[in-house]
Amino acid sequence: LSSAGEFALIARFFQPLAAESPAALGLEDDAAVIDPPAGRQLVVTTDTIVEGVHFFGDDPPDSLGVKLLAVNLSDLAAMGAVPASYVLSVALPSAWPLPRIEQWLDSFTRGLGQSQQAYGVGLVGGDTVATPGPLTLTATLLGWVEPGGAMRRGGAKVDDLVFVSGTIGDAALGLMLRRGEPLPVDAAARAALIDRYQRPRPRLELGRAIAGLAHAAADISDGLIADLGHVAAASRVAAVIDAGLVPLSAAAAAVLDARPELLPVLLSGGDDYELVFTAPVALRPQIERAAAGAAAPVTCIGRISAVEPGGPGPRAEVHWHGQPLPLHTAAGYNHFRG
Amino acid sequence: LSSAGEFALIARFFQPLAAESPAALGLEDDAAVIDPPAGRQLVVTTDTIVEGVHFFGDDPPDSLGVKLLAVNLSDLAAMGAVPASYVLSVALPSAWPLPRIEQWLDSFTRGLGQSQQAYGVGLVGGDTVATPGPLTLTATLLGWVEPGGAMRRGGAKVDDLVFVSGTIGDAALGLMLRRGEPLPVDAAARAALIDRYQRPRPRLELGRAIAGLAHAAADISDGLIADLGHVAAASRVAAVIDAGLVPLSAAAAAVLDARPELLPVLLSGGDDYELVFTAPVALRPQIERAAAGAAAPVTCIGRISAVEPGGPGPRAEVHWHGQPLPLHTAAGYNHFRG
Repeated sequence: LSSAGEFALIARFFQPLAAESPAALGLEDDAAVIDPPAGRQLVVTTDTIVEGVHFFGDDPPDSLGVKLLAVNLSDLAAMGAVPASYVLSVALPSAWPLPRIEQWLDSFTRGLGQSQQAYGVGLVGGDTVATPGPLTLTATLLGWVEPGGAMRRGGAKVDDLVFVSGTIGDAALGLMLRRGEPLPVDAAARAALIDRYQRPRPRLELGRAIAGLAHAAADISDGLIADLGHVAAASRVAAVIDAGLVPLSAAAAAVLDARPELLPVLLSGGDDYELVFTAPVALRPQIERAAAGAAAPVTCIGRISAVEPGGPGPRAEVHWHGQPLPLHTAAGYNHFRG
Repeated sequence: LSSAGEFALIARFFQPLAAESPAALGLEDDAAVIDPPAGRQLVVTTDTIVEGVHFFGDDPPDSLGVKLLAVNLSDLAAMGAVPASYVLSVALPSAWPLPRIEQWLDSFTRGLGQSQQAYGVGLVGGDTVATPGPLTLTATLLGWVEPGGAMRRGGAKVDDLVFVSGTIGDAALGLMLRRGEPLPVDAAARAALIDRYQRPRPRLELGRAIAGLAHAAADISDGLIADLGHVAAASRVAAVIDAGLVPLSAAAAAVLDARPELLPVLLSGGDDYELVFTAPVALRPQIERAAAGAAAPVTCIGRISAVEPGGPGPRAEVHWHGQPLPLHTAAGYNHFRG
């Protein structure tokens, strides 16, 4: 592809995504210029997804647009931020002929466009390069939050309740199915689980709704146990949850009935893009009202307790039928699993 | 690498780069939280560099840290922005054993640290992933500019002078040398040219100094002719420059004396990371004072003229000894040259 060819692709596929963002300057300048809303702090996050590591080469390209924005928007959700705009880096395999690039970009940018509409963000800049390696997609998301209003991982307090949104483990099962591992699911459940893996739905409304209530929050990208562990570590507390309280979809519950040994996979498999957060017991009614207002189911799954001197230290601990559940065989999502 | 291993690498190599940036929240949260300075617009740019495309596998890792920030900072320089912070995405080859990763990160982050000091930016967030492909590095840079103060590509006016900073073509020759192509240079010139390719120096001070004076500006990443062509296209004018006025380093001038056929390579090779800009004739003294204040040599290399109806349209046109120089054999840097 020539430099001229690259400009033609930008004009055809990316400028429409920037059309409603004056900050993008039509994608014709060296950088975007954004007017900060008055009295807000800027929230910034970046995430990369790589073919063969975070997605499959035959995932629909539009789902990659959805996923790339979702994994970043989920970080903004965890902070309670309102997303606004993003910049994009797309590294396309240099072996792809132009028609394949065009076909891929057509679908990929359609997925981006759907998520832009759904979450109110706009493309403001980017870079398109060739790579001798796999498709590699990076987005940096920008959002805004009231000063001091960002939720943090380190704010959990002893006796807080631990809440989680939505259902946990669907994406881990969807990944197993995409890998060709057999699971006892019918066609509808199979499609639903794979959809959870391919098209995460970031909990932005919920994040904003609980931002004034929760003591601590994180999004679940590395797995419930790992991400709750990050909250516990940053807060220097123990988070003790009951596996029996963890909300499961009907599909996941049916799988677990048939294959109970998959419980650790559900709890630590990653890619849920739900929120896990803690809040004082007294605020439980407000949390539940906020969640209802955001159309996001939340479930209380445990409690924060103090770290005892000489004990095992800050951690997420899972109980199952009253006994600690050993999770060392599945200690969190591994970005390097490729 | 386990998730725990990834956290250890972040703590060891990246948290020190974030230590002086409160916005980074210690790299322990889902996103960075930045306080916008009062009365400023946010300027955002992102660029990716890929091994085998934008750099060589045996380039010193610290030079990659320098280059990754420089290619982004250069975009902010072209807008006249003051850089502030950045987020980083590092995709490391999954075949690398841990000692190699540690050795590479040690050098790479040293290069980042040097550029942080030199240009006053701090790391505020990032992502570390594995890739089955080549090293792939992305940074998103954030800076600030006075409202309406950002330079654009589209502001060039008929009769403006065309200026360029520094010297042109050194990086293109450095790239030729790195590729093993023979050039008539001594050891010192060889080292200087390769250094220009490996460690670009973004013209941030110059960008800020001319922001109130220049009508249009771009940084030179795709090559002088291509980037001046972008200015001409965005401004709907013709930019006519005299190749004999283009400033060359002593090393490049010596090469050109011996190999005059390399002139198009110098003018369109890319990776200079100088600024090309236009300004009214009457402001030439102020431009020269601003450049002196920024310790950045600038040279007038041509003039903006009107596009004539029925003519060839907006373009950059190069004259050489009074004749148009055909450049179709080297029509701009190609990101897809990998």
